[in-house]
Amino acid sequence: MDLDFVRQLVQKNDSKIVMLVVDGLGGLAMEPSTRTELEAANTPNLDNLAAHSLCGLHEPVAAGITPGSGPSHLALFGYDPLKYQVGRGVLSALGIDFDLHPSDVAARGNFCTVDEKGLVTDRRAGRISTEKNQELCALLREIELEGAELLIETVKEYRLLVVLRGDDLSPEVNDTDPQATGERPLEPRAFAPPAERTAKLVAQFLEQARQILADHHPANMIILRGFSRLPDWPSMQEVFCLKAAAIAAYPMYRGVAKLVGMDVLETDSELDAELDVLEQNWGAYDFFFVHSKATDSAGEDGDFQRKKGLIEAVDARVPRILHLKPDVLIVTGDHSTPALLRSHSWHPVPVLLWSKHCREDGVDRFGERACMHGGLGPRLAATDLMPLALANALRLEKYGA
Amino acid sequence: MDLDFVRQLVQKNDSKIVMLVVDGLGGLAMEPSTRTELEAANTPNLDNLAAHSLCGLHEPVAAGITPGSGPSHLALFGYDPLKYQVGRGVLSALGIDFDLHPSDVAARGNFCTVDEKGLVTDRRAGRISTEKNQELCALLREIELEGAELLIETVKEYRLLVVLRGDDLSPEVNDTDPQATGERPLEPRAFAPPAERTAKLVAQFLEQARQILADHHPANMIILRGFSRLPDWPSMQEVFCLKAAAIAAYPMYRGVAKLVGMDVLETDSELDAELDVLEQNWGAYDFFFVHSKATDSAGEDGDFQRKKGLIEAVDARVPRILHLKPDVLIVTGDHSTPALLRSHSWHPVPVLLWSKHCREDGVDRFGERACMHGGLGPRLAATDLMPLALANALRLEKYGA
Repeated sequence: MDLDFVRQLVQKNDSKIVMLVVDGLGGLAMEPSTRTELEAANTPNLDNLAAHSLCGLHEPVAAGITPGSGPSHLALFGYDPLKYQVGRGVLSALGIDFDLHPSDVAARGNFCTVDEKGLVTDRRAGRISTEKNQELCALLREIELEGAELLIETVKEYRLLVVLRGDDLSPEVNDTDPQATGERPLEPRAFAPPAERTAKLVAQFLEQARQILADHHPANMIILRGFSRLPDWPSMQEVFCLKAAAIAAYPMYRGVAKLVGMDVLETDSELDAELDVLEQNWGAYDFFFVHSKATDSAGEDGDFQRKKGLIEAVDARVPRILHLKPDVLIVTGDHSTPALLRSHSWHPVPVLLWSKHCREDGVDRFGERACMHGGLGPRLAATDLMPLALANALRLEKYGA
Repeated sequence: MDLDFVRQLVQKNDSKIVMLVVDGLGGLAMEPSTRTELEAANTPNLDNLAAHSLCGLHEPVAAGITPGSGPSHLALFGYDPLKYQVGRGVLSALGIDFDLHPSDVAARGNFCTVDEKGLVTDRRAGRISTEKNQELCALLREIELEGAELLIETVKEYRLLVVLRGDDLSPEVNDTDPQATGERPLEPRAFAPPAERTAKLVAQFLEQARQILADHHPANMIILRGFSRLPDWPSMQEVFCLKAAAIAAYPMYRGVAKLVGMDVLETDSELDAELDVLEQNWGAYDFFFVHSKATDSAGEDGDFQRKKGLIEAVDARVPRILHLKPDVLIVTGDHSTPALLRSHSWHPVPVLLWSKHCREDGVDRFGERACMHGGLGPRLAATDLMPLALANALRLEKYGA
């Protein structure tokens, strides 16, 4: 839904909305005609809540699209992920909790291998270890550029973050990653005249990096992509008139929450610790995004039983949230991560929306198949959840007379 | 759906379509796990019809959006209410059956209170009575403007309609309503040069109104908003090739029907009287919009039992419609008005579409929960109903070879 449209209807009251995101919640049966992780889990609290909720399955981006964590969370927060796009450089910075300044230009880097002619032979430098990456980043930090600060951070394995900080920088610089082996890294060039200085600084950096890394085969060069800057989006306060808090331990989710203007609260990663933070801050915010990560990791590991157990652990904490008496409670995932696929997937994600004003839909089990028959339908656009949450919190005025 | 797309596929035949709109039909259970107004009502005729119909729930505007009667009816008539917007001035005129001319400029007015400095202290003048409003409007009618006729009508309580009639007028004038207390009413200004004369006329009117109302505290000033003109939209005849009639007693619905080119037939407000009109005009039209208002009023009054009884009264009249042998019969509401909320709401609205050619979907009860499982799904875009009606009337050609 268009945010400008919602914005004109928003009104304030003292209701409270909680969105509990169980990362990678949606799943698949390991064998035909058996149950998914969520269906197999014993979830009496969620089932009971479902019986008094509006249920369904949401599609984070579009039919068949497997989302990354950035787009899927933006959709849950009501921001169309096809419209609100974040550059790879910025996403890399968010993912390691790097304190990106508004004028910084960030790029995602790969250590790569080049042959004696300078042609790329491996875009991932044989997937070097994170430790090796850290050693090399320490060397690269010695590079000095004229008129701009250079910041280098290890991300993981062959991936690094490169940030330029200074005045008059621009992200309008092309990728140097040729996206294929057997080709030379591309020259950094400005898309527009104001980026010419930035392109030159990048070229200087890459030339010095080439010299420093020359003897460090297989990681003897760097390729860069996704030059970008922190986006300047309307905040949830501006659009939804919500003072919003994120309770999430992992950098990526904290970063995405920051992009939409949430206050990011300090927390440990266990759900119990997160719920402590929720309780402590209950009076201070209108909207709480509570993020539980472990289910996704279990799915990525292909561990059906562990994911099932973690869902049961979430279920056991639901009463703690209900005890706070939220006006609206949404429980869902950001995407599916079926243990069967060991990865994010495109499958729609179970969702329940509870409020005093929701219309019960006869679904009394929180699971993929049960939710298909709920009032939200089997393919709700994830971006519709925030307008529905606001409506159920009586925070939207009537449209038209 | 895009009207230009439908228009190119429309073909004529002698089928007849009836759309029975039970205003505010959708509801909510007053207590968890009990029934809605419609579910509680004894509706043997609608249930029997549902068993041979395509059923579902429609969303008038978008997820979570509570529609006013104007947008929700436009959606039922196939006109996207976000594209086909009506100014507040025009809506006010429609709502009191005012005979707006195509070149008139209409504004919605509020009597308001200003202090000695001219700052607004109450945007609704203490919600003065309709009788007081009528007295003040009589005084305001004495104002004369140079080169334009001024028409003033009471709407209700503190609300009035102000219309300028004459040549070379333009609605491109800003609101004078500051939308907040403690501020001075805004000066009327033209958005574009052709509106400068209109803005001056409005300023003259407001200055004279200020003098006339000075001693009528709390209604000692007027603020205006929504300067607008009758829209020039394609008619249902042009788009759908339907000779369409509205059988509705209340001005707002008659007005919206006029905007889409329907003939508005004279009728009393009882459904029986409306069905008399339907029978009398059966041969003369292709499409009939029949509007039953009382259910909405009962919902607005928070009277669950009265709304339930009124739904039963509608049910009892369904055989009269069927007796005419329409080719397509749609029964739905324009929006939900749950007695629980005493207002319009965002909840999807039950709908059934009967024709010889619809696909039965196993739903044999006309109610919110039953319709969730129908073939139209739990969240049909209301604007899709007209194309479906046309298709079921065999009035749409194949698209493409």
